[in-house]
Amino acid sequence: MLSSGYTAHVRIAGLSTATGVSVATLKYYLREGLLHGGAATAVNQAQYDDTHVRRVKLVRALVDLGRLSIAEVREVLAAVDDESQSLHEAFGAAQDAMATEVSSDSEWLDAALASVDAFLVRNDLDVRPESPMRAMLAETLVWLTEFGWGLPGIVVDAAVFDSLVPGLKEQAEFEISVVPPDTDRTAQVEFTVVGTMVFEAAAAAIRRMALEDASAKRFGPRG
Amino acid sequence: MLSSGYTAHVRIAGLSTATGVSVATLKYYLREGLLHGGAATAVNQAQYDDTHVRRVKLVRALVDLGRLSIAEVREVLAAVDDESQSLHEAFGAAQDAMATEVSSDSEWLDAALASVDAFLVRNDLDVRPESPMRAMLAETLVWLTEFGWGLPGIVVDAAVFDSLVPGLKEQAEFEISVVPPDTDRTAQVEFTVVGTMVFEAAAAAIRRMALEDASAKRFGPRG
Repeated sequence: MLSSGYTAHVRIAGLSTATGVSVATLKYYLREGLLHGGAATAVNQAQYDDTHVRRVKLVRALVDLGRLSIAEVREVLAAVDDESQSLHEAFGAAQDAMATEVSSDSEWLDAALASVDAFLVRNDLDVRPESPMRAMLAETLVWLTEFGWGLPGIVVDAAVFDSLVPGLKEQAEFEISVVPPDTDRTAQVEFTVVGTMVFEAAAAAIRRMALEDASAKRFGPRG
Repeated sequence: MLSSGYTAHVRIAGLSTATGVSVATLKYYLREGLLHGGAATAVNQAQYDDTHVRRVKLVRALVDLGRLSIAEVREVLAAVDDESQSLHEAFGAAQDAMATEVSSDSEWLDAALASVDAFLVRNDLDVRPESPMRAMLAETLVWLTEFGWGLPGIVVDAAVFDSLVPGLKEQAEFEISVVPPDTDRTAQVEFTVVGTMVFEAAAAAIRRMALEDASAKRFGPRG
């Protein structure tokens, strides 16, 4: 719908049709500042355009697929809308805003962070030192260690994730390569952030299908 | 900590130390029925053991890593605790309970579901017809289509996800292979569910690192 230019200028009911989001929810987005107001055409009437359609879909992707809180959505939108940042910077800031806060004080954390750093070098991943994803990945190693996935007294090594990398890298390169070069920066960041959410949901779904498949083969009636 | 048998029998303060979860949060879990009560040793005193430590970590994984609501956590725990189900069945039920509800009425949904079915056959994934992951993956295709990732008038094909499969399959086989064979069924399901949450968080973190890397190479100062 977006690409077909379906909504040149519509009222809020038309925006609801174009996005599949109820008028009540659209009004909620407007009240919460997640959606910019339409152009006033009369008292209590406003017109909405493609920028609104895109923004509503972005918010829905963050809320429905990403399960972000309204406060977190607001942070992501601030990064998207900050025109002083380059596409790469805005994308990084939006990624950071989407990150789950982790705060481990585990005895394993330092060893886990070192293991993540070695993982990044080994897999040629160019990631900012301050990226919250480093701590996030280290935290998953702490979880695995505390749940007994490793040998006693040794933190689980990030090498356990190595087999995931080639597929995820190929996928990421594809996602970045299809960002439309001829649209404005805000549209590009929106496109990339939605891609992040959608492909993350897809990867999670495929992961669980692969687990069901592996469980069926090992523990199932035909296993 | 779990594997070292740190907590033979402790009071609630000891359970807090063993799990890194505050006493207030533990009491909340008890009130909400997410954690079974300890053995009463005196008025207003109870003792907790390894089954409590494991359960608290499971709840934390579902809440902190999986971002599940309390109601969703309760559903997962019901599947874990239903002894009438085999390990494979309980794991499937827990997976279903962890699934994000999607309800698209998009015109693209039927074509997207057909594309997902072809994807499953092509990639040799043995998934129940009623698995909510099929609809979830189809939904992501609808999102991509509506956001303009494909050609006008054609739903985006699930082949877009093919490159993710080998790594995720290898990973899933590893996760299932390390389920300890010599523990009880409940412990096995808990282990597998925590694995699902932790590896999902790890895969999401690595995905975002790969995206940052790809964005740096294409749009960054060195791109």
